[in-house]
Amino acid sequence: MKRVKIGIAGLGRLGRTHAQNLAFKIPQAELTAACSIVDAELDYAKNELGITELYKDFSEMVNKADIDAVVIVTPSTEHPWQIEAALKAGKQVFCEKPLAVTIEECKATEKIVEQYPDQIVMLGFMRRFDPSYAYAKEKIKAGAIGQPYLVKATGIDPEADCQSLIDSGFIPKSGGIFIDMAVHDIDLMRWFLEADAKEVYALGCSFKHPEFKRDGDCETGCAMFEFENGAMGQIHVGRTAPHGYHIETEIVGTEGSIRISPVPAKNLAILYDTNGVVQECVRNFPERFSESYVLELEEFINCVIHKTKPSVTVYDGTKATQMAFAAKAAFENHVVTPVEH
Amino acid sequence: MKRVKIGIAGLGRLGRTHAQNLAFKIPQAELTAACSIVDAELDYAKNELGITELYKDFSEMVNKADIDAVVIVTPSTEHPWQIEAALKAGKQVFCEKPLAVTIEECKATEKIVEQYPDQIVMLGFMRRFDPSYAYAKEKIKAGAIGQPYLVKATGIDPEADCQSLIDSGFIPKSGGIFIDMAVHDIDLMRWFLEADAKEVYALGCSFKHPEFKRDGDCETGCAMFEFENGAMGQIHVGRTAPHGYHIETEIVGTEGSIRISPVPAKNLAILYDTNGVVQECVRNFPERFSESYVLELEEFINCVIHKTKPSVTVYDGTKATQMAFAAKAAFENHVVTPVEH
Amino acid sequence: MKRVKIGIAGLGRLGRTHAQNLAFKIPQAELTAACSIVDAELDYAKNELGITELYKDFSEMVNKADIDAVVIVTPSTEHPWQIEAALKAGKQVFCEKPLAVTIEECKATEKIVEQYPDQIVMLGFMRRFDPSYAYAKEKIKAGAIGQPYLVKATGIDPEADCQSLIDSGFIPKSGGIFIDMAVHDIDLMRWFLEADAKEVYALGCSFKHPEFKRDGDCETGCAMFEFENGAMGQIHVGRTAPHGYHIETEIVGTEGSIRISPVPAKNLAILYDTNGVVQECVRNFPERFSESYVLELEEFINCVIHKTKPSVTVYDGTKATQMAFAAKAAFENHVVTPVEH
Amino acid sequence: MKRVKIGIAGLGRLGRTHAQNLAFKIPQAELTAACSIVDAELDYAKNELGITELYKDFSEMVNKADIDAVVIVTPSTEHPWQIEAALKAGKQVFCEKPLAVTIEECKATEKIVEQYPDQIVMLGFMRRFDPSYAYAKEKIKAGAIGQPYLVKATGIDPEADCQSLIDSGFIPKSGGIFIDMAVHDIDLMRWFLEADAKEVYALGCSFKHPEFKRDGDCETGCAMFEFENGAMGQIHVGRTAPHGYHIETEIVGTEGSIRISPVPAKNLAILYDTNGVVQECVRNFPERFSESYVLELEEFINCVIHKTKPSVTVYDGTKATQMAFAAKAAFENHVVTPVEH
Repeated sequence: MKRVKIGIAGLGRLGRTHAQNLAFKIPQAELTAACSIVDAELDYAKNELGITELYKDFSEMVNKADIDAVVIVTPSTEHPWQIEAALKAGKQVFCEKPLAVTIEECKATEKIVEQYPDQIVMLGFMRRFDPSYAYAKEKIKAGAIGQPYLVKATGIDPEADCQSLIDSGFIPKSGGIFIDMAVHDIDLMRWFLEADAKEVYALGCSFKHPEFKRDGDCETGCAMFEFENGAMGQIHVGRTAPHGYHIETEIVGTEGSIRISPVPAKNLAILYDTNGVVQECVRNFPERFSESYVLELEEFINCVIHKTKPSVTVYDGTKATQMAFAAKAAFENHVVTPVEH
Repeated sequence: MKRVKIGIAGLGRLGRTHAQNLAFKIPQAELTAACSIVDAELDYAKNELGITELYKDFSEMVNKADIDAVVIVTPSTEHPWQIEAALKAGKQVFCEKPLAVTIEECKATEKIVEQYPDQIVMLGFMRRFDPSYAYAKEKIKAGAIGQPYLVKATGIDPEADCQSLIDSGFIPKSGGIFIDMAVHDIDLMRWFLEADAKEVYALGCSFKHPEFKRDGDCETGCAMFEFENGAMGQIHVGRTAPHGYHIETEIVGTEGSIRISPVPAKNLAILYDTNGVVQECVRNFPERFSESYVLELEEFINCVIHKTKPSVTVYDGTKATQMAFAAKAAFENHVVTPVEH
Repeated sequence: MKRVKIGIAGLGRLGRTHAQNLAFKIPQAELTAACSIVDAELDYAKNELGITELYKDFSEMVNKADIDAVVIVTPSTEHPWQIEAALKAGKQVFCEKPLAVTIEECKATEKIVEQYPDQIVMLGFMRRFDPSYAYAKEKIKAGAIGQPYLVKATGIDPEADCQSLIDSGFIPKSGGIFIDMAVHDIDLMRWFLEADAKEVYALGCSFKHPEFKRDGDCETGCAMFEFENGAMGQIHVGRTAPHGYHIETEIVGTEGSIRISPVPAKNLAILYDTNGVVQECVRNFPERFSESYVLELEEFINCVIHKTKPSVTVYDGTKATQMAFAAKAAFENHVVTPVEH
Repeated sequence: MKRVKIGIAGLGRLGRTHAQNLAFKIPQAELTAACSIVDAELDYAKNELGITELYKDFSEMVNKADIDAVVIVTPSTEHPWQIEAALKAGKQVFCEKPLAVTIEECKATEKIVEQYPDQIVMLGFMRRFDPSYAYAKEKIKAGAIGQPYLVKATGIDPEADCQSLIDSGFIPKSGGIFIDMAVHDIDLMRWFLEADAKEVYALGCSFKHPEFKRDGDCETGCAMFEFENGAMGQIHVGRTAPHGYHIETEIVGTEGSIRISPVPAKNLAILYDTNGVVQECVRNFPERFSESYVLELEEFINCVIHKTKPSVTVYDGTKATQMAFAAKAAFENHVVTPVEH
């Protein structure tokens, strides 16, 4: 019954989700410390979660707090040095995606991680832990579709949130749709195909909200990857799903296909009314992936307890980032673009 | 390439559907004569279908016209004597359901039909010919669900047509929902279970249009049949489907179930919009069963050509009518009611 | 952050589910005591859950343990006296369904509960807390289907578990399918229709496993209820679903219908293979309703904290039991049977 | 009631489908002549269809037969000169796709057609006439999804037919998957987007049947088009669908999406068995598009009768062919390839 003591860094929206999961939904975890440069976030940790070890400085937390591990949910630019500091302090590390914001930093972080071979660094690609995705992976491993050779991935954020995203000034800071959104679909592709990408071509357009184009991004992006083993990947990412939050993935193999979530139904209820037969859909990623956020941390905690390696590594973070940057370059330059390794 | 020459009796809405199918969609049939007491219907036959042998009198048509067979689509009260007259004149007979409007007349018509054992009398239970229902029957025959022991049948007319039905004064003349509507579901039950009913209990209510209750009928009816072999049947019939025309049937067996049309989709297109994920539905029975009307007449024509017996007989008509009348009595008397044989 | 201290009674299969939920998934609850007459169950509480206050005697627990509330998951026959003892000791009570095994005991328990008007007694009809069912209720309250007037409920246990159920000698002790299984569907009917039942008729058969019939029960049961306001209810319960655990409910109203779980899909993945397009289904009730078990206890804890009344009361338990017994009598006597109140 | 007299050229598999539709399913058409260089095909016309005007020579038929129009279902290489001969003889022309086998011939045929501005030349892109596709087009015209900007098209032939296709020596003669199969998806893209393509990139692989790669083709092809108005198109074509014949299209617009046939269900029946919940699928294109073949000829006949222009023109044939050739070149050269106009 020994529980893993955790310090969390960052208590914004996603940070709070992780913090609540650690505090209340994962029996073997104990959330004992929190770190944030924002006072309100520390107040939240104290008042809502009852945490008493509070820090403004990440390095101080990892060095002083009575913790076994850290969960990093800070801005992406902070990830590399915080990973390093935590490893140096002997802590196990769970870090939200992305690993870093440039490929150089990803590579540098890989090197650092390699210096601590006995410590865990797990990256938060939560979709892999969604029960439907995990089930698909199991079925594929069991041979249900033969050899997978094509992944078709769709990821569309809800139109309901789009205008406020634009108004918040998010677009120019986002890195663009291929970095910000497609990276999840890209990770799934690599995971299902068990192969790395060779080249990519990409397109984009902005028919509903011209602000995306104005800011050098696109509202909807399409990309097509060729993998080193000859497999292929098609991506469609967007910002304007009218029906909710639409994440759909199909893995095509020599003996069959598995398609995940063509109808992103809110639940099992179906309405028959004057519109016809209607399924209401999930609104956003917290609704769609709430369970995944718990399950990925369960894996992390299990790895810590049983001293095993997590299924998502820093290399996955680097590879997905490389593919996303290549897609972005392909979109910007209108040319088939090699994926760096 | 010899074609079966047909005379049609009755050219109302359904009569015209049959006439057009005979004229244009069934290669081995030739529609050469038509009979109606309504001038406009004969004009239709002449002008739209190019039929030159036109009759006001049914007996005259069956005795004088150059025809091999008749298709009877007249008011239900006329069916028995017209079947008799056609048989007497040596013609093959296809008659729309119901066989007759009372059980006594059904029984009497059976007796008449038995006097002409070499002639065909086929009854128009078109649902059996719908490709989905025919497929279900084939799968069941092939053992896909083991021994069928429960049929759950739903039949709901569209709300869109309900007010005009009420306004037309149809309800008091309809015979009630169990006679008018449930008879189709009842026929399917017998067909799938290959058994006859023993007893029935029924209920009804009228929450949306009180006119049904006022006229001694019900807007929605539920019935539960016990069959002689111990199998069971549940029926739900109604008049107020907001989404369109809803016919759904499930056959439950010892090894599996087959469910037909839980979503009565208009076609294969699905709309993703602010309502969610939406399937538009079929509007009415001509849309839902258009193909069945062709296929049942194809079977009839094939029976005539190959001198085989049709799969739907007058006995099916009598049995379904007996069950419908028993359901009606159960509803009216609030008591479990035996089905006469 | 004050947490409600709980003592649990009974740590069989479902008891352990409740215990784990209380221990690990409900932040405001603290599982501090456990009671069982089975040593292995107390060992479980001690070793797996770290509970130190362990009791063999229920009365002792409610009187001595440092607890605010009890969760009763003992055999049904014990429920009435344990509810009374807990109330007497000033504790809040959550009790698994059924309230009692006879209507007389249900009524007697109601009287006892009425003597403690300031204490909470909540009954575990967990389906009401399933997100899809709760969503349906909300939509109906918001007018999405107008006035509900018909509930069609299906509940079929998996064939995969049926033989071991038979072999375990469960059937003769179960009370029969209408008491053991239909009571959940009956509760949903009352909840959705907001009405009480007047009469019921029921049928049953046993085509796959004759042992059910041999033991005076049936493998598959059908019932049809008439409610006091004129609404209707159709039930189909069974033991032999080949595809998994099938719970499906449709609520039909004057303006539309809501259907819950016509395809009891395991998750959002769909397989395209030589069988066609396939959705794997949930295996059993713990898989289907795992979330409901958490959510119902969350409501209970919230009621305790905020001193509000739970949405499921002892009266719901009595009413559902009365309807189930009437259905059983209707099945056994082959007659429309009034529901006692 | 005047009927359009038709001569058919070519009575292979698809030719016979057209011939039977003309003979038996289209009231305003009269199939009076047939032409083939294959004796068995002329025998078929004579014996099965009762046609008496039989020709071995196409030119002779168009010049001598008592016909208003020709339906050309001959090998693709013959299309251009037969269209010209028919126009010269004053006949209306329906020609199966493709218009021609090279872009030069397409262009040349356009020029010829332009010399006969009062005559009809309609091309057989039958998918546009499928009720689900036609419905989607109507909904889009009515504004249901706003401005369409992305079409995702999938077309996969059944694995069940693949080995015999390979064994027949078809691959090297087929023109490759982008010419042979994708041309239908390409036509749909242009139709839904109402725009022409600018550039294309394409990939292909052959994981199951290496014969495709060996012959310079691919078993599965992916292409991504950029359109002149900025819209995009994704294509996935293949030869190895295990579940049947899979044609799926999604049109994404600024206000919604329409998806056609994600489950290519054989009919409305659903099987619940030990596999889960299963929908059997259509086997091949004749099953999937049987109705479309009737409906496209109905449009042609209507155009002839009412002297209107068909919705599918030779220009559609040329444009789709240009896009298919560009995709093929992109696949072969691994480079983003402009679409010629």
